[in-house]
Amino acid sequence: MSDLTIWTYDWVPEGPRGFVRDLRLRWACEEAGLAYAVRTVPFDDRQTNHLDRQPFGQVPFLSDGDLQIFESGAGLLHLARKSERLMPRDPVGEAETLQWTIAALNSIEMVTVPWWFLKISGDPDNQLTGWMGQRLAQLEAIFSEREWLAAGRFTIADLLMADVLRVREVRAFGDRPASEAYVSCITARPAFKKAQAEQIRQFKTADEKRSRTASG
Amino acid sequence: MSDLTIWTYDWVPEGPRGFVRDLRLRWACEEAGLAYAVRTVPFDDRQTNHLDRQPFGQVPFLSDGDLQIFESGAGLLHLARKSERLMPRDPVGEAETLQWTIAALNSIEMVTVPWWFLKISGDPDNQLTGWMGQRLAQLEAIFSEREWLAAGRFTIADLLMADVLRVREVRAFGDRPASEAYVSCITARPAFKKAQAEQIRQFKTADEKRSRTASG
Repeated sequence: MSDLTIWTYDWVPEGPRGFVRDLRLRWACEEAGLAYAVRTVPFDDRQTNHLDRQPFGQVPFLSDGDLQIFESGAGLLHLARKSERLMPRDPVGEAETLQWTIAALNSIEMVTVPWWFLKISGDPDNQLTGWMGQRLAQLEAIFSEREWLAAGRFTIADLLMADVLRVREVRAFGDRPASEAYVSCITARPAFKKAQAEQIRQFKTADEKRSRTASG
Repeated sequence: MSDLTIWTYDWVPEGPRGFVRDLRLRWACEEAGLAYAVRTVPFDDRQTNHLDRQPFGQVPFLSDGDLQIFESGAGLLHLARKSERLMPRDPVGEAETLQWTIAALNSIEMVTVPWWFLKISGDPDNQLTGWMGQRLAQLEAIFSEREWLAAGRFTIADLLMADVLRVREVRAFGDRPASEAYVSCITARPAFKKAQAEQIRQFKTADEKRSRTASG
């Protein structure tokens, strides 16, 4: 049995399948060749049923033996300590990986997620659009000059940034060819494909179980 | 001369004084007793004048000898490796600090900053208000039960969370006595007071220089 366990919901509606953030941790484990198990908490009553393990009622969280850690970004940094494939070990390469990992969480996702939320709430031309355009243009300039965010190689910073940028509505925002090439390239990695297929398969299997329960 | 240099703007308008994010790094250095210098990049033309060191035109960034790192959250995690006062060294305490540091950046600030931006843009009852209320209520439940976020002691997770929550408009959101007590307690620390006073003094000194230049 593996010591690493990734916790996610037992089921989600079709929309978010392939995008639930346990994917970030599955993907990292696949890249690093780390053995892991996937276990679930109920999607129903998620606001209250696992607050002792994730105080916002979200997923994923990670168990590593006796240690538990929530927040997908924290889980990635935790996994990165286990494998050089996820983060280089030299101080400069490590600092670059760390800064771009935090940039994905706090400079990019801080605008893309609220912008997306306002858009799907019926306000596509919302007041975050200018900020969103500025950040994505700044990233486009970066991707026009380089293939990887940190240390001249694939790291968790690329995993996370590509996961932030591949969201349908974000990907369709403006004409950003270098960013599009980046997202295509990073999400063509076999480890991503495998992690995504397994998440989708898990939720599809749960559909069948739910319909049996509903009709039983 | 110190190896650690915190970079910030040479001047900012009065509104953000005491809140510019170089404060997070100054504060961490003060807590840890780490020697540091403060240097500046021009506020004017900030969108383009230091993109090689901070690709979004923001501050702070940190130099540590030859190494450079941007994103205040990344700078805090970098500094935390230098001093146990900022983050415990046992694996469980370290994981708790890491998860709550990322939670401050990606679960709390991800809603407080866009909500604040919409509010000051003239939309106080904006569509992020429900999400904001939910996250702050979840935090209120946490602070009702404990004094520190991680490891039963002060860490960079508290430094960062208190800095996120002390923003005037966020602090005034709803009736949250445990959160208010937490913010008051953390920002009463001498290291915070000193860091904040020095930031305010620096920008005030820059006022005098700017007015001399304008009239010279």
